[in-house]
Amino acid sequence: MSPLGPRTKRLLRDLESGGIDYLLVTELSNVRYLTGFSGSNGLALVGPDLRLFVTDFRYVEQAAVEVDPEFERGQASGELVRAISGPLDGPGPLRLGFDDAHVSVRTHAKLRELLPGPIELVAGAGLVEARRRVKEPAEVERIAAAAGLAGEALEEVLARGVMGRTERELGLALEVAMRTCGATAPSFPPIIAAGSHGALPHAEPRDVTVQAGDLLVVDWGAVLDGYCSDCTRTFAVGPPAGQAEEVYELVLAANGAGLAAVRAGAGGREVDQAARRVITDAGYGEQFGHGLGHGVGLETHEGPGLSPRSDDVLEAGNVVTVEPGIYLPGQFGVRIEDLVVVGADGCEVLTGLGKDLRVVG
Amino acid sequence: MSPLGPRTKRLLRDLESGGIDYLLVTELSNVRYLTGFSGSNGLALVGPDLRLFVTDFRYVEQAAVEVDPEFERGQASGELVRAISGPLDGPGPLRLGFDDAHVSVRTHAKLRELLPGPIELVAGAGLVEARRRVKEPAEVERIAAAAGLAGEALEEVLARGVMGRTERELGLALEVAMRTCGATAPSFPPIIAAGSHGALPHAEPRDVTVQAGDLLVVDWGAVLDGYCSDCTRTFAVGPPAGQAEEVYELVLAANGAGLAAVRAGAGGREVDQAARRVITDAGYGEQFGHGLGHGVGLETHEGPGLSPRSDDVLEAGNVVTVEPGIYLPGQFGVRIEDLVVVGADGCEVLTGLGKDLRVVG
Repeated sequence: MSPLGPRTKRLLRDLESGGIDYLLVTELSNVRYLTGFSGSNGLALVGPDLRLFVTDFRYVEQAAVEVDPEFERGQASGELVRAISGPLDGPGPLRLGFDDAHVSVRTHAKLRELLPGPIELVAGAGLVEARRRVKEPAEVERIAAAAGLAGEALEEVLARGVMGRTERELGLALEVAMRTCGATAPSFPPIIAAGSHGALPHAEPRDVTVQAGDLLVVDWGAVLDGYCSDCTRTFAVGPPAGQAEEVYELVLAANGAGLAAVRAGAGGREVDQAARRVITDAGYGEQFGHGLGHGVGLETHEGPGLSPRSDDVLEAGNVVTVEPGIYLPGQFGVRIEDLVVVGADGCEVLTGLGKDLRVVG
Repeated sequence: MSPLGPRTKRLLRDLESGGIDYLLVTELSNVRYLTGFSGSNGLALVGPDLRLFVTDFRYVEQAAVEVDPEFERGQASGELVRAISGPLDGPGPLRLGFDDAHVSVRTHAKLRELLPGPIELVAGAGLVEARRRVKEPAEVERIAAAAGLAGEALEEVLARGVMGRTERELGLALEVAMRTCGATAPSFPPIIAAGSHGALPHAEPRDVTVQAGDLLVVDWGAVLDGYCSDCTRTFAVGPPAGQAEEVYELVLAANGAGLAAVRAGAGGREVDQAARRVITDAGYGEQFGHGLGHGVGLETHEGPGLSPRSDDVLEAGNVVTVEPGIYLPGQFGVRIEDLVVVGADGCEVLTGLGKDLRVVG
């Protein structure tokens, strides 16, 4: 069996138990997961007797190299969904799952028009995503490699100094360092947030100079071989001032409590709570306004979720972030984020960087 | 009236003639066009007596600065569409347009569930896009500024030499140069394709060194102040060899014929044909496998289209590319792309770079 073959096989079992005969896979990360195709236009159609991949003329050569040999390869011009009516014509009444969270109303109408009458279209969002949550060892290796590369790139940027450089310059330097180290791309635009700007969890780099006395929040990741990393470190630019050290130690303790709670069988809400309690007990509960973490893989944000509203239960092989933060508007923010792989009795941290408050210049 | 006010006013006239009472605008470029908001989560709801903008807590401050004052600003947690049912409750039966080309089947079902029964959901894709085709003078200025910046960045990269550098290195250098010159981002990942790789219209930069004797296709653009540029130039790396010059001159002639055909009232098919004829008559028709051009604005690819299948008619104020190419598999490719603004009697070229075959080292 091909290396990717078991993925579709497991998915087909899920379809069967969900009463779905065939699944149309259109979201590109899902297509990549099942077929190996990394281009920007392709779909897959899978069922008990069918594994079809379709792309357009631009990607035919790439598909020949990348797509799992168990898939038959087809080519379509214009809308790719036109290519699926042929293979589904004949078998009689059946239930075709589609990704209702991504397929547009217009594409759905087109599908309805193209497909023979006895085919029922069934909402099937999240089926491939559910399978993607548990990573194979080779996937964990890729995520770890992306995390290693991202860490190396940050060290290069820090070695050239941060004081007196703007957030935007540092963000660009970090992107360039990751790409020079071999990353395909950053997994998201790096957050470089100094001083009071660090109090915005989703700060965008500004044309503002990093100054002595700032805390500097850096949240960044790399894409390597299709897989993402995600990490946050908070640095002291010169000796830390005011409450900075105290808040830092608190977030670090919350990070540690979160890590200690991660294991197969633990609930996403429970792990969030383990970390959150440390912050809440110290009186900063209102200043930690986001969830503790999320899954990472082919996408930077995927399942399972660690948050007060999560119903997810961790499984061995999940890769998740543990990223508590405290944000003091007008003053500063601290966030410390590790990427970990869930094991039966705990977790293994994939992030290689130290976490003691580091003074940079 | 606010600077953006006339945009919604014109849109409301279109809605009226289309029998749509209110329009839900969810695609972010459309939201930006109408409201000015440049963040990554927001929607607008417009109607004769209503201009509502909604975002989440992360963007409230940004919205206060950016969003046109004629819009009332709202905040929602979770799915933004939840915020529109209140304002639409009361007026009785009405037709609410939504973007069926972008709204997912799931979101549509949620809307149906949230909205009072007498509200009919009506497919309304393309309405804002149709308005975006004709650029205001200030929009043309921004596109021209993006094009100028992109050209400047390319000159910087060429000045450091291309021979012996990889396509990937050059692509990264070009991105960095654009960002250093002030671009928000590249408008798409630059194409840097040397030798036979240039025969792929959508080539991705490789870890392959640019050599003397190669033709080098560079297709790139910058985003500045929300607006995109798009340009292609083909260079000779050292003295051109074989058919290269002859094919280059042919593509240049086709580019000139296309430019000469651009004017308000001309059909997208007709302009394509004017350029295509030059290539077809010389026996290379099969080697020009894509359309002649496309509109450019808040997105790199928008309307109107110049191609053999286009039913669009050019209007004064459209900004379009004119980009014929000849692709000889296994040998080389040539593409020459200008960005132009359509006028009553012709067009004005916004691309500032020369087009005689330039030898670079």
